[in-house]
Amino acid sequence: MQFSSRLIEDAVNAFASLPGIGKKTALRLVLDLVQRPTEDSVQLARSIAGMRENIQHCITCGNLSDQTVCAICRDRRRDTSIICVVESIRDVMAIEDTQQYRGLYHVLGGVISPIEGIGPADLNIDTLISRAKSEEVEEIIMAISPTIEGETTIFYLNKQLADTAVQVSSIARGVSFGGELEYADEVTLGRSIVARRKL
Amino acid sequence: MQFSSRLIEDAVNAFASLPGIGKKTALRLVLDLVQRPTEDSVQLARSIAGMRENIQHCITCGNLSDQTVCAICRDRRRDTSIICVVESIRDVMAIEDTQQYRGLYHVLGGVISPIEGIGPADLNIDTLISRAKSEEVEEIIMAISPTIEGETTIFYLNKQLADTAVQVSSIARGVSFGGELEYADEVTLGRSIVARRKL
Ligand SMILES: [Zn+2]
Ligand SMILES: [Zn+2]
Repeated sequence: MQFSSRLIEDAVNAFASLPGIGKKTALRLVLDLVQRPTEDSVQLARSIAGMRENIQHCITCGNLSDQTVCAICRDRRRDTSIICVVESIRDVMAIEDTQQYRGLYHVLGGVISPIEGIGPADLNIDTLISRAKSEEVEEIIMAISPTIEGETTIFYLNKQLADTAVQVSSIARGVSFGGELEYADEVTLGRSIVARRKL
Repeated sequence: MQFSSRLIEDAVNAFASLPGIGKKTALRLVLDLVQRPTEDSVQLARSIAGMRENIQHCITCGNLSDQTVCAICRDRRRDTSIICVVESIRDVMAIEDTQQYRGLYHVLGGVISPIEGIGPADLNIDTLISRAKSEEVEEIIMAISPTIEGETTIFYLNKQLADTAVQVSSIARGVSFGGELEYADEVTLGRSIVARRKL
């Protein structure tokens, strides 16, 4: 791709460094911004930089957060006796969208995967065990994608939680085996939480 | 989509304001940036804002440019006796990619389209006529998409250029009728310029 403008070239390359954005798509985005008011681009730039510079992981649950403790952990109306364990913030969002769950979350940051070299120490697991022991937690729901890695992770966590008083449950298998949790429809996902089973 | 972070929400909405980027895609882009070094996001933000704040239209040819006069118009090695008239910077890039053309360009900024309410006055046409009259221009190539609107535009320009000394030609019809110029493959586009015909 031949550019006669260094400014356009730099912006295209920056967009094209994002996953799933090719050079043609990046050029389309850049030329769209050129045709819109300057303020739109400034706003986009500010959102991106501001987000990245200020985003942090909630020290309690590992969720992405604007503050030290995330909005969900801070919310006094949530049921603090129950923690839903998920892989990522996408899953938190997917479950929140169902409006079927009012407990807290714990974001692992992935699942155990020997192939990808991800072990328990690479995940946000220690804090989950601490929470299970120290807080008023009565139940921990495993809302982890039903893949081999997910099953391995649930098995591991279940063992770690064996000497705590919490009841461990798993979301009902409305989510198809091998399916990604975040792509499940809201109804299926909501129902599978309501109809969770003990492990 | 329920966000527990305002920072994430703002960034997702900013990305989703771009054409062809839905909320799910925007979230994927934002979460990718979160996992990468802060510097990547700062660089992306800087490229976007810097591009939009400093980009301008070349006063000679209408191409997007980092300076008052674009890099192509400034290039002393280009053949200044020939001007290729195109709709947009995308077409300039597509033709430059063929490496078959060493003349100058003139970017109209669109085509005449009564349906969309775009008339000759809305396009960068006056400066083209001035260039045809005042410069050492010998030939003007119409490299405009072969659509109804494109044909109308060529017809109009040809009439306007009738009392100048320049020879007006059109790129050969290797580009399929109704096709967008920018999506033509390099070989077809390159050949259609070399095999251009007089109008
Ligand atoms: Zn939290
Ligand atoms: Zn120029």
